[in-house]
Amino acid sequence: MTSAIAAPVIGTSSQQKFRDELIQHGHFLPSGEPGVYGRGMVFEEVRNRFDELVTRVCAPDKPETPRFPPIIPKSTLERAGYLKSFPQLCGVVHSFAGNEAAARDMAERASRGDDWSHHLSATDVVLVPAACYPSYPAMALRGPLPKGGLTLDLGGCYVFRNEPSGDPARLQMFHQREMVRMGEPEEVLAWREIWMDRAKRIFEQTGLDATLAVASDPFFGRGGKLMAINQREQGLKFEVLVPIASPEPTAVSSFNFHQDHFASAFGIKLHDGTVANTACLGFGLERITLALFRAHGMDIRDWPNDVRRRLWPEASDASLGR
Amino acid sequence: MTSAIAAPVIGTSSQQKFRDELIQHGHFLPSGEPGVYGRGMVFEEVRNRFDELVTRVCAPDKPETPRFPPIIPKSTLERAGYLKSFPQLCGVVHSFAGNEAAARDMAERASRGDDWSHHLSATDVVLVPAACYPSYPAMALRGPLPKGGLTLDLGGCYVFRNEPSGDPARLQMFHQREMVRMGEPEEVLAWREIWMDRAKRIFEQTGLDATLAVASDPFFGRGGKLMAINQREQGLKFEVLVPIASPEPTAVSSFNFHQDHFASAFGIKLHDGTVANTACLGFGLERITLALFRAHGMDIRDWPNDVRRRLWPEASDASLGR
Repeated sequence: MTSAIAAPVIGTSSQQKFRDELIQHGHFLPSGEPGVYGRGMVFEEVRNRFDELVTRVCAPDKPETPRFPPIIPKSTLERAGYLKSFPQLCGVVHSFAGNEAAARDMAERASRGDDWSHHLSATDVVLVPAACYPSYPAMALRGPLPKGGLTLDLGGCYVFRNEPSGDPARLQMFHQREMVRMGEPEEVLAWREIWMDRAKRIFEQTGLDATLAVASDPFFGRGGKLMAINQREQGLKFEVLVPIASPEPTAVSSFNFHQDHFASAFGIKLHDGTVANTACLGFGLERITLALFRAHGMDIRDWPNDVRRRLWPEASDASLGR
Repeated sequence: MTSAIAAPVIGTSSQQKFRDELIQHGHFLPSGEPGVYGRGMVFEEVRNRFDELVTRVCAPDKPETPRFPPIIPKSTLERAGYLKSFPQLCGVVHSFAGNEAAARDMAERASRGDDWSHHLSATDVVLVPAACYPSYPAMALRGPLPKGGLTLDLGGCYVFRNEPSGDPARLQMFHQREMVRMGEPEEVLAWREIWMDRAKRIFEQTGLDATLAVASDPFFGRGGKLMAINQREQGLKFEVLVPIASPEPTAVSSFNFHQDHFASAFGIKLHDGTVANTACLGFGLERITLALFRAHGMDIRDWPNDVRRRLWPEASDASLGR
């Protein structure tokens, strides 16, 4: 869901123009911080409607639907090996545990606009970097998977990436609508195939110019380049890309085969006691909503009828404002 | 929404028992970290149904419904004066910005279970401490309020409190369903009165033993004691308390008059250019869901018919499993 090149904090002129249009139409409410925006009512209506469309497409999988908060124990991040791959993206929660004099100094520094971070220390929690992370230890705790494995629909979860950017499509926290499959390698890969087809249809039906391509994660540093090449050669990651506000299309959906990476790290076993395989897939809901505004215009009343019918299936033409 | 006394990380025996029951019934999925749990499908069904009940009750207010992510600029926290009142509860996001050698050292320390926090530094974002915080600068940016002021329904927002606890009703991140009113002092106070009545009815109809009481926030330190006394004497904060898993009832809803605190800090003006007043109210959705399981049992099929009809108004007795 992230591309390998971090965008600068001041976006390109076309990114700035798109961002200004979003603000002018009330779709984005600026906070003063790059990549942190409130979202207007119409934006949220579209985001929720796309989310519901995914729910309808997902129904045949009969998934279990647990929900997880946007923080996980630091130990989960450590066990998953996240810091080896993406140290630059993590977000660790720091808090204050000092006495009254220290609290007074901290508040005074803050009111003067001075740095007050030396009063803070790391807590035991970090922000969720991808929606699937909390699901692995939680499912491992239950014991071996049932025969046929397990499918989870984790809903639209907030995830964090430390990458402040002037690109309105690169947010520091965004909703990842994520599904996870745990089971035998063939089961897991077949499920990923089905979903790449489903996703292609979803994007066609919503009028987006989508391309499916083999992809790699934004692994850190020189060592990361090799990891990325290896990931591409093995076809472990695919992405759907659509035009938003960058010269190149932006990733809005990804389909990831982890082999036994997470299952080994967290002890997820098949019914016969051998280690499982896992895959996950995610839809970046804010990015997809932005792509829809980009493709069909800032006013949803102007959107093509067939796109509107797909997102608002229960609405009559009259209630759609026609 | 927080009480003034922090609970210990190991809960009381009745808190442990309630937590174990929640886990056994699949309502809570433990993460290994106190106050951080996944939530099962039935728990989420109840939480969402209560949320929808609040939406129905809120409809006559015709609120605007923007949505904000769980992070805000650090400067918003500073301007709001949060560190003067609640330094112990804040959560600041720290990230890694070092080179490859530092990244390698960090990952190696993490894999050995050693501390790696000295590799991190403060970013410009903090976790949202109360759902209303991002709304003040966003509304101030728009210019003076319309005549009659403004009502916001912010939905169920994740908020963070640095208070790891063995009480299953004290979570580090939870959904605060929050509404905000901005306007003249009389408008704002009248709205808060109406909502205290509405909340009383909501809790009666869902079969909870609820008490409305004047309250104070968990202000820090000795100076905080005076602030708390002052807040109570002026009747600035009311809470609804219900029995959950502590010897004393737990706050599940609060009704807060801020006078011009936030409006002055962020420059929110009335239509005539004078400074506005604000109030907010919140429902702690996880706590209310826990209170419902506590009051009516772990299996929702056993819940009283009138409670079930209130939460699932469209369901027939048959579909309710009777």
